[in-house]
Amino acid sequence: MKKLVNAPLEVVREMLEGFVALAPGQALLEGETVVVRADVPAALGARRVAILSGGGSGHEPAHAGYVGAGMLHAAVAGDVFTSPSADAVLAAIRAVAGTAGALLIVKNYTGDRLNFGLAAELARAEGIPTEVVVVADDVALRDTVEPARRRGIAGVVLVHKVAGAAAAAGASLAEVAREATEAASALGSMGVALGPCTVPAAGRPGFTLGEGEVELGLGIHGEQGVRRVAHQPADALVDTLLSTIVEDRDIGKGERVALMVNGLGGTPPMELAIMTRRALAFLAERGVKVERAWQGTFLSALEMPGCSLTLLKVDDARLARLDAATQAPAWPGRGTLVAQRRVVSTRGALPTIQGHPKPQPQMAKVKAGALAVADAWDAAEAKLTELDSAAGDGDLGLSLARGAAAIRALPEGAWGTPSGALMELGQALRRNIGGSSGPFYATALLRASRYLTNKVPDAADWAKAFQVAVEAVSELGGARPGDRTMVDALHPAAEAMARAVREGKSLGEAWAEATRAAEQGAEATAGMTARLGRASYLGERAKGIPDAGAAAVVIWMKALG
Amino acid sequence: MKKLVNAPLEVVREMLEGFVALAPGQALLEGETVVVRADVPAALGARRVAILSGGGSGHEPAHAGYVGAGMLHAAVAGDVFTSPSADAVLAAIRAVAGTAGALLIVKNYTGDRLNFGLAAELARAEGIPTEVVVVADDVALRDTVEPARRRGIAGVVLVHKVAGAAAAAGASLAEVAREATEAASALGSMGVALGPCTVPAAGRPGFTLGEGEVELGLGIHGEQGVRRVAHQPADALVDTLLSTIVEDRDIGKGERVALMVNGLGGTPPMELAIMTRRALAFLAERGVKVERAWQGTFLSALEMPGCSLTLLKVDDARLARLDAATQAPAWPGRGTLVAQRRVVSTRGALPTIQGHPKPQPQMAKVKAGALAVADAWDAAEAKLTELDSAAGDGDLGLSLARGAAAIRALPEGAWGTPSGALMELGQALRRNIGGSSGPFYATALLRASRYLTNKVPDAADWAKAFQVAVEAVSELGGARPGDRTMVDALHPAAEAMARAVREGKSLGEAWAEATRAAEQGAEATAGMTARLGRASYLGERAKGIPDAGAAAVVIWMKALG
Repeated sequence: MKKLVNAPLEVVREMLEGFVALAPGQALLEGETVVVRADVPAALGARRVAILSGGGSGHEPAHAGYVGAGMLHAAVAGDVFTSPSADAVLAAIRAVAGTAGALLIVKNYTGDRLNFGLAAELARAEGIPTEVVVVADDVALRDTVEPARRRGIAGVVLVHKVAGAAAAAGASLAEVAREATEAASALGSMGVALGPCTVPAAGRPGFTLGEGEVELGLGIHGEQGVRRVAHQPADALVDTLLSTIVEDRDIGKGERVALMVNGLGGTPPMELAIMTRRALAFLAERGVKVERAWQGTFLSALEMPGCSLTLLKVDDARLARLDAATQAPAWPGRGTLVAQRRVVSTRGALPTIQGHPKPQPQMAKVKAGALAVADAWDAAEAKLTELDSAAGDGDLGLSLARGAAAIRALPEGAWGTPSGALMELGQALRRNIGGSSGPFYATALLRASRYLTNKVPDAADWAKAFQVAVEAVSELGGARPGDRTMVDALHPAAEAMARAVREGKSLGEAWAEATRAAEQGAEATAGMTARLGRASYLGERAKGIPDAGAAAVVIWMKALG
Repeated sequence: MKKLVNAPLEVVREMLEGFVALAPGQALLEGETVVVRADVPAALGARRVAILSGGGSGHEPAHAGYVGAGMLHAAVAGDVFTSPSADAVLAAIRAVAGTAGALLIVKNYTGDRLNFGLAAELARAEGIPTEVVVVADDVALRDTVEPARRRGIAGVVLVHKVAGAAAAAGASLAEVAREATEAASALGSMGVALGPCTVPAAGRPGFTLGEGEVELGLGIHGEQGVRRVAHQPADALVDTLLSTIVEDRDIGKGERVALMVNGLGGTPPMELAIMTRRALAFLAERGVKVERAWQGTFLSALEMPGCSLTLLKVDDARLARLDAATQAPAWPGRGTLVAQRRVVSTRGALPTIQGHPKPQPQMAKVKAGALAVADAWDAAEAKLTELDSAAGDGDLGLSLARGAAAIRALPEGAWGTPSGALMELGQALRRNIGGSSGPFYATALLRASRYLTNKVPDAADWAKAFQVAVEAVSELGGARPGDRTMVDALHPAAEAMARAVREGKSLGEAWAEATRAAEQGAEATAGMTARLGRASYLGERAKGIPDAGAAAVVIWMKALG
């Protein structure tokens, strides 16, 4: 058994301490595993009916999570999957019930019925008016078990809400009990488990399931379900569960309902959302109006993977109870649905940066250079593939060959200005080069393009454009010199070019110096250990071979020379 | 692989549809797996900075759950554990960014950096001011990896909140980016996994763990952690995680922090609460002031069982950002802690019902009858044990022998009035009889006691008291005649007694008729199939043997005769 617990016998006390510490509206009743509203002493004289629930632990956030103004006044926690004692329930009633009395909401299990029922009798003997409402919402056993004798499962949370709101609104004990009873009758739930759960004190799962099996109609104590079936797509499972509920509860066209999609403890939000999607569609197809819906973990079965669905019939009065405000930390809020899935259209692309109006004389050279790069990449494909295979995934040669084709395919209009040409080159490489090379080259070219906007660049402008492009590459991947990446060629090259330009050298001379610096930098990568990217997983194994990305930089820089 | 999904390739779209259907403030961007604020078209002209985040799916409720006023404007979802494309990110930026620009919050993974970074560059090229903040909060690799190169994990949610609140407050892009960057630097997280998770399209877990092993410092993509250690108590794991975080982030005495206890998808609330409890104690022991704390599933790794802890250093300004209102459905609210765990004392028991002031002449007979019942139960112990073993758990004989001892131990003062004596008997049986017999007899006696309060009962009163007691038993357990329980003896007995009294018969005669009816009822249970309680699991196997509970009723009724 692997769980985030300490001693199995301490799980209930420890978890309640953890919950209550983060719930300013709650307190632990001294000497009991009972969570009460923190304002209860002040409320003792109040004429509001006190609402209590509880049962075995292992169903968190039930039941403590529903303690708070507008919902429960107290939650009584037994050991895991074990009813609390009648004494604990009585202590809770004594702590929270005022002159208006108490309503106990109990799930239909023998232990809970006996202990809550006896506590109610003891409370009455002490002069506290007390009523018990039993919730039996599990329709899984509908073929063999009459409604009143079914198990209580996740739907009880909705009964808490209805009763809590009625009590907060000042209804009498009889009225609150009637509303809770009616809600319990208007309720149907059914679940599916993908696996078992393990009671901490037992240390092993309650049942086992084959690889391809799921358990339909499971209980919430790791007990087996109604039948074991082959695992099915989520939509099929939703249809099975909801068909059973709507048939049993006689929910047809035009009926108004609230829907609860409940995770059993080990179910991730992704899967609940997929179940919700189908549940809404299923009900819409049958003309059932879903007035409210919630998805989350409301009543769990330890770490069981699986889901239960609950439908509660509603009218305006019951909806108002569900909508009423509450401070209970685990109540998910209003549950309002959107009328239909709305989509927001993407606005059109903003106008791209316009090229310089005058045709620039250096553009023939820019175009020729770009085409030379394309040729050089093509020629180097095999070599780059070999280098990249030593430490990377071997796709660099092919990627840059695709880039070469994209460069050659650029229309004549792409070559109007330096800024415009770099932009077009960047977009072309982005669209045609996969892996990480595409984003790096595209980002570099776009950054340089932005720098050169509206410029007729001189040598200093080109040097600066190269520098901002190299910075963009560093920023994008987080690489610095020494990490065994293309930056080891780019960074010294940009530095050398800037230095040469500062020293008054021509663009051609500066580029030649930059290329030599790139070449040295690329060679040096052979002695480096990769600290980023896929190559870093290899540790020292790539030593002696230069980095393919850095080598590719040297190839296009030489081609531009 | 067992998951509540349909086709693995459809999980992202389907889950987003499920989430957005229940989130009235959200909408899906047409043609993209991008969730945006539903009010975005109206906000397009606004001068508020747009906050975007996203990444691979499988981390739900991240990132879509954080889309809403006061937090994110858009969340871009890639395939499971796969970065979204730069085009998808760009589409999101275009949809939500106004003149104030956009901030992209990115977790430090190569794919996310490249695609969000390239999209930022493309957006800038379109004239949209765009900044990128990279979050790298995982301190697990602190011994080998410098801070800027660590992975981004659950702490990113707190950066969403800080940036979202700053943007909502009207801060400029530079200011929002600065606050987000500073929050990212003030953040440390570390996790532990109890097992792996399975990418739907892969169909098998990313790693395996031995029975007694856990993975410390795991990533959020099912990747392995920093080291595999023996499974430990929850408290020890919390200490390991938090020690690493406070050392790395230099969080010492007097530092103010926010704490996030994050479930990884397959972790039930019980276990998170136990982790929270120790985390708060650990920080209190070190004099670290926890200003806010949350527990829940904030950023998951599919269905991985495990937990991560996050600490964010806070000052008043950052606290105000965390406290600011937001409509994002997955933000857990204010996270205020209680200063200390408060307990509410149980108030003393209400005064029990006072017996009738005058000593009643029939009390000698009542006491003698009760003692006769005690003798009869003792005498029948072996027989009841045998009967109960056939279909129940065999404890009835011993239970009632304990009850007999409790009856004999009642003090003389217990026998003052019929009502008082029944109350004392009920309390004595409740305290001394385990199983279900205790609650049934106690509840019956208490109900009868309540009926007889302040009465000097005649035959009709006794008959009515018997009847309400039988009703209490039925109500408590939900049993009706025919279910093969004690009610099969009690119900006809109460009917017979009421009928005899109505016909003017004496108390003695009426009781004799009631006893005969009970005897017939008990005998009839031998032909019944149990429909309630443990015996019901046996089906037909108990046929031919009368129900032990019904037989026990006959024994005490005869003794009273």
